[in-house]
Amino acid sequence: MADKTLDTLFYETLKDIYYAERKGTTALRRLARAAQNPDLKAAFEEHEEESQQQVERLTQLFEMIGKRPRGKTCDAIEGIISEAHEIMEEFKGTTALDAGIVAAAQAVEHYEIARYGTMKSWAQKLGMDDAVTLIDQTLQEEISSDEKLSKLAETVINDAATRSDE
Amino acid sequence: MADKTLDTLFYETLKDIYYAERKGTTALRRLARAAQNPDLKAAFEEHEEESQQQVERLTQLFEMIGKRPRGKTCDAIEGIISEAHEIMEEFKGTTALDAGIVAAAQAVEHYEIARYGTMKSWAQKLGMDDAVTLIDQTLQEEISSDEKLSKLAETVINDAATRSDE
Repeated sequence: MADKTLDTLFYETLKDIYYAERKGTTALRRLARAAQNPDLKAAFEEHEEESQQQVERLTQLFEMIGKRPRGKTCDAIEGIISEAHEIMEEFKGTTALDAGIVAAAQAVEHYEIARYGTMKSWAQKLGMDDAVTLIDQTLQEEISSDEKLSKLAETVINDAATRSDE
Repeated sequence: MADKTLDTLFYETLKDIYYAERKGTTALRRLARAAQNPDLKAAFEEHEEESQQQVERLTQLFEMIGKRPRGKTCDAIEGIISEAHEIMEEFKGTTALDAGIVAAAQAVEHYEIARYGTMKSWAQKLGMDDAVTLIDQTLQEEISSDEKLSKLAETVINDAATRSDE
């Protein structure tokens, strides 16, 4: 049996995140539709455009390693999305829906941040400079998107979620 | 039907992270056992002690809101752990095993960072100052643990994973 090294891991994780990114994009679209606050809807829509570019960058990474783009079922994103759907269902029509939606979206973002962070560090070690640049663009977008959601939650969404308590 | 507000979300997410934290601790123990590098094993063991304190802090949070500690199946952590087991199986005995183990552990950490970040922001809004302090202690530990793993990967683990390529 051939030894498996960092390039095997890179390819396996690329298939994982390719699946997760496309599933995550669909999930964020559902969260956007369910969101009540217009700023939150707008934040999701902006991120959706980014996500399409992120998927395009992943196909470029497959090209760089001489493989065809191919996803592999990612149990992690399936679980995260299943919780997102549960929150949308349980909190539908309630004051706290948007706060729950932000939390669900940030769990998606953090999964992607973990994976892109790992892949960037592997690409560096593998000397794949162009791959590092591509992965880092996406990583920075995910971090920025997560920060935007935190800020929106702290300034608007969480206030709205406590309103009927006051 | 009573409206659901931020305190409902806080309670639901507390049950989720209570389940995830305990499952995550068990998963990290398995990753530690599978790890080949002694520094990586040591990092996991150190984090395991922290995790026990983190579970204890969660029981204190339940007390603060007058509830008994109770977990709720967290599909997200189940999916993340299922991928961790897959990596341990697929890369067993190979040069890249430790790099895969670090990646799996960082996915666990990032899930927890997302959830604790959200809960801290909700506790702030709910005026639960003692809860904010407790959650922030855990959040800072998770962030620091994630950074330690990144550093270990970049300085030692990823090198070892490319060795048979050279």
